[in-house]
Amino acid sequence: MTQYQADSFDPRLDLVLERVIEVPPSLVWRAWTEPEHIKQWFTPKPWKTVECEIDLRPGGIFRTVMQSPEGENHDNVGCCLEVVPNKKLVFTECLGPGFRPRDGGLMTAIVLIEPSGSGTRYVACALHKDEADRKKHEDMGFQFGWSKCLDQLVELVTRLKN
Amino acid sequence: MTQYQADSFDPRLDLVLERVIEVPPSLVWRAWTEPEHIKQWFTPKPWKTVECEIDLRPGGIFRTVMQSPEGENHDNVGCCLEVVPNKKLVFTECLGPGFRPRDGGLMTAIVLIEPSGSGTRYVACALHKDEADRKKHEDMGFQFGWSKCLDQLVELVTRLKN
Repeated sequence: MTQYQADSFDPRLDLVLERVIEVPPSLVWRAWTEPEHIKQWFTPKPWKTVECEIDLRPGGIFRTVMQSPEGENHDNVGCCLEVVPNKKLVFTECLGPGFRPRDGGLMTAIVLIEPSGSGTRYVACALHKDEADRKKHEDMGFQFGWSKCLDQLVELVTRLKN
Repeated sequence: MTQYQADSFDPRLDLVLERVIEVPPSLVWRAWTEPEHIKQWFTPKPWKTVECEIDLRPGGIFRTVMQSPEGENHDNVGCCLEVVPNKKLVFTECLGPGFRPRDGGLMTAIVLIEPSGSGTRYVACALHKDEADRKKHEDMGFQFGWSKCLDQLVELVTRLKN
């Protein structure tokens, strides 16, 4: 666990996906921060990410529109909080662009990327306000969903690399 | 208006106090960021700020405990978002320390400080999620309260200066 996680990650409240993947940190960063890439891996198929907008600075928008297999769109607006290129991205659903308060946000997401051998140690945390929200997110399929998306990210990045 | 405000301040949703004060920006910054100073000006008398905790970095805590004249304590926990020494402080009530989501936050506060002659141009904005929250904050006495507190800040900083 990194210093950051030791400070703020709480297993009672939070969820985490941690894995070593065989692609370089710089490409994982690009996959996470460039809208054209996000659209290719961010939602577990057969769901799609049909729109994405990222203004990569504290206070900048982080927005995705997810489309269900039935064609229903879900608009998710959030705000970037910390941006450390190739290392750390933090964004929250509890604020909109310009740090404006917004209702109904479930989580703050922390993505940590660091070199591990020839690949990347990848840690994605979802921070929640209470145990009920952690449970809700778990029941929505956090582990399966985020893990399947990570497979899709690795597949995309492997194509970018070659 | 600064660039930042032009980007995010919305008169339908937000409240602002703007004034030129005859104290230097560096001392206004200290008054806003050092707990011992905050306790002396942050609540309009006869209210008191009886506790204050600030970890001055994005993700760090911004907490005050306000005490009513009847002795009732109100604990306000928030999170620092942007820290630009002597220039800009942003914190929100919608997140707790470590950027953890929290319920019931009314505003994100943006404090802008810049030199103006021998003094400081002081701008304090409160950003809200909707018009109802702006109205609620206005009815709680935003203009009177924040203005009176600014008088107290100027009084404190004038003492520090001499």
